[in-house]
Amino acid sequence: MEATKLRVNGKRLRASLEEMARIGATPGGGVQRLALSDEDKKARDLFVKWLQELSLEVSIDEMGNIFGRRQGRNNSLPPVMMGSHVDSQPRGGRFDGILGVMGALEVMRTLAENKVQTERPILIVDWTNEEGSRFAPAMVASGVWAGVLDRDYAYGRTDLNGRKQGEELERIGYRGQGPAKKWPTHAYYEYHIEQGPMLERQGKTIGAPKGILCLHWYDVYLTGEANQVGPTPMEGRHDALVAAAEMILAVRALPARLKGNMVATVGEIQNYPNSRNIIPDRVHFTVDIRSWDNDHALKAWDLAKKDFQDIATRHGTPLKIDETWRVVPAPFNQKLVQRVLETAKELGYSSLPMVSGAGHDASYMNQVCPTAMIFVPSIGGRSHVEVENTTWEDCEAGANVLLHCILKTAEEK
Amino acid sequence: MEATKLRVNGKRLRASLEEMARIGATPGGGVQRLALSDEDKKARDLFVKWLQELSLEVSIDEMGNIFGRRQGRNNSLPPVMMGSHVDSQPRGGRFDGILGVMGALEVMRTLAENKVQTERPILIVDWTNEEGSRFAPAMVASGVWAGVLDRDYAYGRTDLNGRKQGEELERIGYRGQGPAKKWPTHAYYEYHIEQGPMLERQGKTIGAPKGILCLHWYDVYLTGEANQVGPTPMEGRHDALVAAAEMILAVRALPARLKGNMVATVGEIQNYPNSRNIIPDRVHFTVDIRSWDNDHALKAWDLAKKDFQDIATRHGTPLKIDETWRVVPAPFNQKLVQRVLETAKELGYSSLPMVSGAGHDASYMNQVCPTAMIFVPSIGGRSHVEVENTTWEDCEAGANVLLHCILKTAEEK
Repeated sequence: MEATKLRVNGKRLRASLEEMARIGATPGGGVQRLALSDEDKKARDLFVKWLQELSLEVSIDEMGNIFGRRQGRNNSLPPVMMGSHVDSQPRGGRFDGILGVMGALEVMRTLAENKVQTERPILIVDWTNEEGSRFAPAMVASGVWAGVLDRDYAYGRTDLNGRKQGEELERIGYRGQGPAKKWPTHAYYEYHIEQGPMLERQGKTIGAPKGILCLHWYDVYLTGEANQVGPTPMEGRHDALVAAAEMILAVRALPARLKGNMVATVGEIQNYPNSRNIIPDRVHFTVDIRSWDNDHALKAWDLAKKDFQDIATRHGTPLKIDETWRVVPAPFNQKLVQRVLETAKELGYSSLPMVSGAGHDASYMNQVCPTAMIFVPSIGGRSHVEVENTTWEDCEAGANVLLHCILKTAEEK
Repeated sequence: MEATKLRVNGKRLRASLEEMARIGATPGGGVQRLALSDEDKKARDLFVKWLQELSLEVSIDEMGNIFGRRQGRNNSLPPVMMGSHVDSQPRGGRFDGILGVMGALEVMRTLAENKVQTERPILIVDWTNEEGSRFAPAMVASGVWAGVLDRDYAYGRTDLNGRKQGEELERIGYRGQGPAKKWPTHAYYEYHIEQGPMLERQGKTIGAPKGILCLHWYDVYLTGEANQVGPTPMEGRHDALVAAAEMILAVRALPARLKGNMVATVGEIQNYPNSRNIIPDRVHFTVDIRSWDNDHALKAWDLAKKDFQDIATRHGTPLKIDETWRVVPAPFNQKLVQRVLETAKELGYSSLPMVSGAGHDASYMNQVCPTAMIFVPSIGGRSHVEVENTTWEDCEAGANVLLHCILKTAEEK
């Protein structure tokens, strides 16, 4: 068959996704497959079995990253890579991560059954612990592989039960022999659900993010004065929760104030002593600011910090701020992004240039080689929840775009 | 000695308070003597020993309330009672509750060493579990004694470890034989720290609350929509924490809006999933409204509820509200309140008519017999915290007022 006529098998892709969705299935229709859990192991075993059925050369590195290599005509050339992750959020969805792995597997199966030969070798990869919900931080194993994070640091990260990531890799039998160390790579594609509502709102099938937003994390700590609520008049109170409430609204107001191109969120709050008849004297909350424009995000934080100081002074609730983490925007390779858009068009799918608000292993891969992502719509924009959903047609469409991007890129000499 | 010349022994009172403060002492200078804990038992044992040294007739009822009776000339007359509680908040202070018990003990000691005879018998009481922090609700044993709460309901209340209040009474050896059932009582006085800043602010020594504020408790539940924060634009979000923040500020604004005579507080909040990169989809928070005017408090709640509905509608975060508990104001006996003020004046102490924002066992006693309270200043208005403090001079002053109120009331035929 002529290469341009090749299409993935949508039914087979669906069957693979459905089989994976049974591993760690939750009553609410999602999956819970936390990194290095028994469910993660089951999903890995199945994935490895499927790779072996395709006679791919399987290797597992010391971070548990699973690679399946398909030889090209010229195996001295750096390979083209594609993949994502099989781990999930707690009570997460059936598409986040696994779609990119099963989509890449479907590409491999399509190439195999059509006996397609490519110039360059092609690698499929499952990156360990992308989510970071059991062991922080996220995307840790692609980070080690890319040379950004240290292996022993990664091994030493613990979960809430005090279990170490390195020991859990060992326990489930996925602490491999090979070093988690980048090799020369020609290109990396990651196929993923959008996790936002833009494609659905605009009625498009394929999203081509020009890159990943910057990500700034802050931790704010307030100190007030605890007192029995009844006998303590309103004037003179130092209520840390009231001060925090004003700050939460200040964060919410940032994007409108700075004219868009930004999201700003308080996702986490701890309040002490958290008793209904005691004025709160200690609050911790987080701030997450993301933008395509790093300076814009920094400017927003300056405004927020000034607001926080004013609010804290007014309430007499002194403030401590940690600037916890800052990642600059990751612009993908323009040629590859363009290829995603063109391929979508050739295949008859509508498409949308966009940005990725969420982090992905592609962030680290972007530091190793030319990288791009392929997005398909998330119904209702929902993700990291059990109702996360994408139509089977869109799953197939994204896999076809991945197939042809891989075919084109693997022919490059 | 002429009765009007009698004074308590301030040094002895201080020594008793200091000895009690060693039981359950915390590193921060407070005490932790949770109801029916080992520390509570130790404090009870010491208290009983002191009662026995005074040859008082000690009895312990089935709720663990400890009574010490001093006979009068006419023991067929209903007695005068005085007391408070020896249990404390977690990491609470050295005065809340125990001052009223040690103050009453000091009155008993003063009467004994001066061989004072009174017309009526006098009872000192330590009420079990006033705080309600280990086993909710608060003031449970005076509630049972007053006939308002059911004994078996009280027995069945569990702590966070699943231990039952009745079993813990048994365990520490304070499940007594006598029924916890009110008897005819002529009057009840409770001596307590103010737990607010009014006395200190106005430079007064003795507070005479005309009663206890009404107390209205509400629980508010919000449902939003969880999503990955990065890819989810600000418009269209249903952020339950942002909605809750607006509601917290609406609660804070209530007293000013209704022109005072009220406190309104959000002390407790739970946020889910409480992850820094997921939009909160579930928030629970509490509302505590207190006022001397019950209708005023109800009107405030009507305004708050309307605000809450508007905010919930605007954010698309549906609302569920529980009206958890409402206690109407408890006005004390005017004659006794007046007696506290007059007695302070006779003894040369400045005084202040006021209200009690906090609940006390006196609330339930007020349903049994004429009741009044005697307050002394809380330094900085602080209470329920380790730094809770009152000067030894003020402790002595309050005990002298208690002594003379008791003397006058116990002479009534």
